[in-house]
Amino acid sequence: MQRRDFIKGVGVGSLALGAAATGAAHAKAEYRWKMVTTWPKNFPGLGTGANKLAELIGEMSGGRIAVRVYGAGELVPAFEVFDAVSRGTAEMGHGSAYYWKGKSEAAQFFSTVPFGMTAQEMNAWIYYGGGLELWQELYGQFGLVPAPAGNSGVQMAGWFNKEINSVDDLKGLKMRIPGLGGEVLARAGGTPVNLPGGELFTALQNGTIDATEWVGPYNDLAFGLYKAARYYYYPGWHEPGTIMEAMVNREALESLPKDLQAIVMNACKVINQDMLAEYTARNPVALSTLVDEHGVELRRLPDDVIARLRGLADEVVAEIAERDAFSAKVYTSYRKFLAQAREWSAISEQTYLRARDQV
Amino acid sequence: MQRRDFIKGVGVGSLALGAAATGAAHAKAEYRWKMVTTWPKNFPGLGTGANKLAELIGEMSGGRIAVRVYGAGELVPAFEVFDAVSRGTAEMGHGSAYYWKGKSEAAQFFSTVPFGMTAQEMNAWIYYGGGLELWQELYGQFGLVPAPAGNSGVQMAGWFNKEINSVDDLKGLKMRIPGLGGEVLARAGGTPVNLPGGELFTALQNGTIDATEWVGPYNDLAFGLYKAARYYYYPGWHEPGTIMEAMVNREALESLPKDLQAIVMNACKVINQDMLAEYTARNPVALSTLVDEHGVELRRLPDDVIARLRGLADEVVAEIAERDAFSAKVYTSYRKFLAQAREWSAISEQTYLRARDQV
Repeated sequence: MQRRDFIKGVGVGSLALGAAATGAAHAKAEYRWKMVTTWPKNFPGLGTGANKLAELIGEMSGGRIAVRVYGAGELVPAFEVFDAVSRGTAEMGHGSAYYWKGKSEAAQFFSTVPFGMTAQEMNAWIYYGGGLELWQELYGQFGLVPAPAGNSGVQMAGWFNKEINSVDDLKGLKMRIPGLGGEVLARAGGTPVNLPGGELFTALQNGTIDATEWVGPYNDLAFGLYKAARYYYYPGWHEPGTIMEAMVNREALESLPKDLQAIVMNACKVINQDMLAEYTARNPVALSTLVDEHGVELRRLPDDVIARLRGLADEVVAEIAERDAFSAKVYTSYRKFLAQAREWSAISEQTYLRARDQV
Repeated sequence: MQRRDFIKGVGVGSLALGAAATGAAHAKAEYRWKMVTTWPKNFPGLGTGANKLAELIGEMSGGRIAVRVYGAGELVPAFEVFDAVSRGTAEMGHGSAYYWKGKSEAAQFFSTVPFGMTAQEMNAWIYYGGGLELWQELYGQFGLVPAPAGNSGVQMAGWFNKEINSVDDLKGLKMRIPGLGGEVLARAGGTPVNLPGGELFTALQNGTIDATEWVGPYNDLAFGLYKAARYYYYPGWHEPGTIMEAMVNREALESLPKDLQAIVMNACKVINQDMLAEYTARNPVALSTLVDEHGVELRRLPDDVIARLRGLADEVVAEIAERDAFSAKVYTSYRKFLAQAREWSAISEQTYLRARDQV
């Protein structure tokens, strides 16, 4: 796909106001920034979200900042984004915080946690519950300023070539599922595997893995995973509202005048909402295509499997708090907020969604 | 409350970057705008959201635009906001679209609809499902450009002085519930009443009304409604994700350079997300206060009451489509999107929230 093509597709609401950051605009800008990303260039939702973030900064600044986006591997490999922005090789990055758990286990709380908060709850914790301040404290040690800049919403549990009817069916299951979700699967007797997105289809088709999770219908359809697996399970217990992040090199940010600082940080907020809206609109359409045109069989994980995973997830997440004092602080904040948010969700979102189905 | 006081409270994330739009800043700005609102000045969540929108435009524009916010009745009465911005008395307004159903019944779809979409689904329809284009078409006839600029999330069903145990308990019930929710109550045998927010407490206390809805725990606690009613019912079937709107006078918007146009419209997006995050964080805390400190009794509306209201709501909403061709077009778009969104919510948000409760 040409860069020009997806820019045309951006025309939702005010994102399309103003000129696109073309090569010429880049040359005459006062600030020329690089944004390195963990996503394949132009990948739907994630990569295009990073592109929109760059465009928006260009529009709102009247071209004073021009941000050029690099896909994974173009300037630095996907998993070197954090270090590249930290040392100033690029002024910005776009990824998700759980990729940096090597820096601190606590980073995972700023992406998503198995059986944790939904997108709406995460935003509440981050912006109004002290979450952002903790995230700033962590990234500040590396000269970085973090910001939420996208959300997938509730993901799917994944693609399976055998049915999951009981806890026993998880035993020996070789599944691509990274991070905390993978640790939970391991404790349930499965074998978690980590593979880059681009290798999932082949690994599933040739039997290297029995199952894989990725994101949700919109992204999973794009990868053609339905051609390599029969059952599509829900709900995405391991990623209930994953935040994509922007990170900005603090020195670069502070070198901007105040208005441009506000533009950069608020553009992240715009994209944070925009990506969730995009997934929420496109997932149901893609799901129809998968089920109606490709004969995919939708399956809900049985209650006893969910209950088992839930119990194991609580253990895995609680152990993060034992690693170091900062992780304990983030865990305590997250857990307290989640407890309140759950009570509110129970009588608002959850009861409402059930009520809507009654006739 | 002093204006200075709530500005200090705004300090979440990047909203606090840059200088506040003080009187001096207002005087030296290139563009001095007025924003009229339908809210009491500085009202928590709604009025403060309008204030934050004005601040943010000031920050991101480096003070080139200064927006002065007027509470309801300060420059024009609450329900003249639409006309005032349409004729250019003020450049911007902040309210909610269902207040303007006198202009077109279709306006209500851009606020909320009984048993309709949640906040997340509304954003998906507005930004990625054709909703904003329809809204622009409607408001364009009045020289206005609309934008979502806040959301309450799922509201509460309201405050009652008698229990609602069956459909019969709705008969003769005198309840403050405006708009489509009120029409539904009327068909169920109740008597809907419309009163401004500031009169709810007294009307409930002196028995002029038997019940009232308002927003949710955060706002309802501020009004002290718990002192005048015993039972607090949920879920808010009549307002499952109400969008607050900004409207901009089109000539005023087009008189701005492109970068400032982008700043104004994207500031609305930032506040759209920010207000929902604020309500999601503050509602559970306020709910605890109501239940634990004030002894409020939480009650869920019985299933048969919900089912009856649901059936009546479908009739009431469908009849909007019969009023005129444009309303029919909006109804068709909304209904089609909701049907898809419901299927997706069922296997994502809804199943996930249930799964999270299993141990």
